[in-house]
Amino acid sequence: NANALSDFFFEYETPRQVLVRNRRVGVVCRLIQLGVLVYIIGWVFIYEKGYQSTDIAVSSVFTKMKGVGYTNVNGVERVWDVSDYVFPPQGDSSFVVMTNYIITEGQQMGTCPEVLLYLLMNSRLSLFQGEMTGVCVNTTNTCEVLAWCPVEDDRIIPSPPLLMSAENYTLFIKNSVTFPIFGVTRSNLVEGIDADYINKCLYHPEDAPLCPIFRLGDIVKLSGFNFETIAQEGGTIGIVIDWTCNFDVAVKHCKPKYNFHGLYGNPSDTGQTRPSLGYNFRYAKHYLENSVQKRTLLKVFGIRFDIIVQSLARKFDIIPTLTAIGSGVGIFGVATVVCDLVLLYLLPKREFYKNMKFKYTDTPIQVRSRQCAK
Amino acid sequence: NANALSDFFFEYETPRQVLVRNRRVGVVCRLIQLGVLVYIIGWVFIYEKGYQSTDIAVSSVFTKMKGVGYTNVNGVERVWDVSDYVFPPQGDSSFVVMTNYIITEGQQMGTCPEVLLYLLMNSRLSLFQGEMTGVCVNTTNTCEVLAWCPVEDDRIIPSPPLLMSAENYTLFIKNSVTFPIFGVTRSNLVEGIDADYINKCLYHPEDAPLCPIFRLGDIVKLSGFNFETIAQEGGTIGIVIDWTCNFDVAVKHCKPKYNFHGLYGNPSDTGQTRPSLGYNFRYAKHYLENSVQKRTLLKVFGIRFDIIVQSLARKFDIIPTLTAIGSGVGIFGVATVVCDLVLLYLLPKREFYKNMKFKYTDTPIQVRSRQCAK
Amino acid sequence: NANALSDFFFEYETPRQVLVRNRRVGVVCRLIQLGVLVYIIGWVFIYEKGYQSTDIAVSSVFTKMKGVGYTNVNGVERVWDVSDYVFPPQGDSSFVVMTNYIITEGQQMGTCPEVLLYLLMNSRLSLFQGEMTGVCVNTTNTCEVLAWCPVEDDRIIPSPPLLMSAENYTLFIKNSVTFPIFGVTRSNLVEGIDADYINKCLYHPEDAPLCPIFRLGDIVKLSGFNFETIAQEGGTIGIVIDWTCNFDVAVKHCKPKYNFHGLYGNPSDTGQTRPSLGYNFRYAKHYLENSVQKRTLLKVFGIRFDIIVQSLARKFDIIPTLTAIGSGVGIFGVATVVCDLVLLYLLPKREFYKNMKFKYTDTPIQVRSRQCAK
Repeated sequence: NANALSDFFFEYETPRQVLVRNRRVGVVCRLIQLGVLVYIIGWVFIYEKGYQSTDIAVSSVFTKMKGVGYTNVNGVERVWDVSDYVFPPQGDSSFVVMTNYIITEGQQMGTCPEVLLYLLMNSRLSLFQGEMTGVCVNTTNTCEVLAWCPVEDDRIIPSPPLLMSAENYTLFIKNSVTFPIFGVTRSNLVEGIDADYINKCLYHPEDAPLCPIFRLGDIVKLSGFNFETIAQEGGTIGIVIDWTCNFDVAVKHCKPKYNFHGLYGNPSDTGQTRPSLGYNFRYAKHYLENSVQKRTLLKVFGIRFDIIVQSLARKFDIIPTLTAIGSGVGIFGVATVVCDLVLLYLLPKREFYKNMKFKYTDTPIQVRSRQCAK
Repeated sequence: NANALSDFFFEYETPRQVLVRNRRVGVVCRLIQLGVLVYIIGWVFIYEKGYQSTDIAVSSVFTKMKGVGYTNVNGVERVWDVSDYVFPPQGDSSFVVMTNYIITEGQQMGTCPEVLLYLLMNSRLSLFQGEMTGVCVNTTNTCEVLAWCPVEDDRIIPSPPLLMSAENYTLFIKNSVTFPIFGVTRSNLVEGIDADYINKCLYHPEDAPLCPIFRLGDIVKLSGFNFETIAQEGGTIGIVIDWTCNFDVAVKHCKPKYNFHGLYGNPSDTGQTRPSLGYNFRYAKHYLENSVQKRTLLKVFGIRFDIIVQSLARKFDIIPTLTAIGSGVGIFGVATVVCDLVLLYLLPKREFYKNMKFKYTDTPIQVRSRQCAK
Repeated sequence: NANALSDFFFEYETPRQVLVRNRRVGVVCRLIQLGVLVYIIGWVFIYEKGYQSTDIAVSSVFTKMKGVGYTNVNGVERVWDVSDYVFPPQGDSSFVVMTNYIITEGQQMGTCPEVLLYLLMNSRLSLFQGEMTGVCVNTTNTCEVLAWCPVEDDRIIPSPPLLMSAENYTLFIKNSVTFPIFGVTRSNLVEGIDADYINKCLYHPEDAPLCPIFRLGDIVKLSGFNFETIAQEGGTIGIVIDWTCNFDVAVKHCKPKYNFHGLYGNPSDTGQTRPSLGYNFRYAKHYLENSVQKRTLLKVFGIRFDIIVQSLARKFDIIPTLTAIGSGVGIFGVATVVCDLVLLYLLPKREFYKNMKFKYTDTPIQVRSRQCAK
């Protein structure tokens, strides 16, 4: 037994092979093998980086807006600062910048006639303006409702948008990403983006692609929208922060790329996506006047920004490398099978090659005789 | 040297093989090989779609509620519109719809007795109602605190829930997904879901599975909850938008599937998950009355909706295809090894087969003699 | 034809091999083969668990703060409860706990001089305090602006922070994760974490690692920050919930791990990450006083918590298992190729081995004679 083991260790088996000296078959097979080799080395390894494993980041995003808006409606001047025009105020990754609004001041609970929205209405389209009292108001030809009165009249959207100044607001984005498998944490304030630079810079796709401060007008323009159009009825824009990193080179080369696009239908799209254009919501400020609870209702039209972090990191890993090599060897085997098929079934001398390649075991005696015949 | 290269190119090696003509071994080995082939083609390729690579989407979600609630508490009628009952107002992917509340009006900063929460209290369970002043109030047998007074008394939760009308509110969901590796962007307003359809449709699992407008009562029912139960103490419901797409067929077949489930314990679950049932938070509206800062505190019980986007796209990719083929060839090799073990160690004629398969290289002379013996 | 098929089924081919009885080559090759085997079994299978496929979870997170703050500024006592110091109030996965603030009361729309921020200003650094009226105010040497007046003066940040009591607030986290491919849903209220336990427990990294209730001071400490420092100017802390699960064992062993770290620069980092330290935002409460719209502006400094769910589940899967085996066989083939190179090109007896391994097909006649020569 110990002998068998030592035999096993001092032996080594290698397959016996026929070396076919046939120009046509040789060239065809070498080309197939070369193709497989080029595929494995060129495509899988170099182009697709098959020797690397991948990781997707977990991330967190904070934002901060700056800028002051100014409106002059019927001679009443107003300024709008960050706490007036950003919803929510605390700097989330998804937020709305108000660019237009319909204000309904001094609403209080009571009964009043509904505002007629459409002349033709089907039964499904409820106005949702309040609780029907069952009374019909003759002057307006609409139903009376129990609601915050007077009911908001949003049939006319101010044009041009009241807060066109939003174009010059700036947005500061802080983004931290962690690749959990590779154990790497990066922030969009990469090497070289220090306090000094941030105080001066403004994002530009070519001149300052790493500056984390963005002018709203630039974002809208880079998304392909016209600012006045989107400001009037609102819209939704995605700010994609793309972390495509290769950790086989120094970590400092892992830098974010920013790009911008409309989330529901770009301006160039056809009517198909129409239902989703525009963005608005209602927001109320409550107060007490002469012991009566009142509220100011704001229908806010704005640009909703959604900061979307997209990440894909790659790093050398022994497992995918050896899997690629191992399966590459398998594909080499397929190439040999293909060549064998040519050799054994298509060539004129196929019977000869069959005899070369195979040894038969019909019966011990038969075989011996065959062997001798050779 | 050039000769060696041309030799190499015009040559081709193919392994020499023994063709074992043995019914039992033949059948066993062919069946094993067939099994491997069926596994590779049937399971890896057809069933598991091993020829495809996968991609997970980045997504953004916006929501919009519609509907008006109505309460009549002690003869005081009130309506609740979207800006009153949705938190936050701007249409996030995670939001709360108020269904019940405890209101504490006219709170102002001052000292007042705590509300007794439990008769038996251990030291860890702080009431957190305010800053202790150190005074004991005899009438209530509780401590005096500096707090917003009067302190909220939330011992009795209104039943039935005050805003049962929430059942008829509707929720409109806009969801955009981007598969970054495949470069495909889709929205839940797929082909055919146009403005006209949206104005009329209402989600139904079978009749209108693509309508992005949902009745709250339907969502709660589909999650397995009873509306009145969940409305009273609040709860958390996940709305899962499932994008399982195959981009080898036309992109337009990539459509979302909606499903709904309780996030922390379904009603059918046992007491185990009890601690997590119910959902509430406190919210204050501040105002000034006779130059005194006051607030109305609302303990909001509501249904928290969390829209969760789940995605998995697949598309033909040459790398996983060839990896699957390559490793399949490897497994074929394992099949051969298994058959060889049978052939060389289990069969009665094993010595004969060993001689057929192997050629020994003990010494040049030994081998030559052996060869002659054959 | 049926004969050929039955022939095919009752036959079985196995490669013919040379058994090289050479100690050096044998040992080298067996060692290489052993290395490959150890790599495949030890590394790919046991260490990297190559027989498993992976899944990343979709998750939802809810939070609830508890605790009361107390401030005494110039003799005016105030308490701050949850609805005063948490933004937003509804319990999102990303929220801010106010720890310090600058309050500007009684602001109303009007004109007033700007507050001088820096003595030296470059043109890019706009003050953004309001709309310039073009008037210069001599007493302050600054421009007059149309703004909410008086303009906030945030040059001095209160020190020590006004709400140091935030250290004792507690945070309750509810987290539900779903692994879509494996179809498993888990909550951080795992087995054994029932209502009783939650009422008593407090998270501790070693003593109570599964308690979902966290003291703010503990979180800050575990992140490596000093509470007073971070409380004064604000900061951002990530609470990572790590779900690393192996579903080949019972699902109940799939438990969350909590860890905490600063998101933008830890206190130990150098000045590089400076620009991102601190966290604040502005928040306004509107009211009506004598029919004039006024607001109280709060510059909130706080700790922003971002709850980040990180997940990786693994489970036995036949596909990666067989891919690993298959490519392992391929790598075995590589080992043979390496040994063959040694055998055929490096050994002194290489010509002999070449003759053993290869059979040439120069011409039928040539071959026959060669064969005889052997």
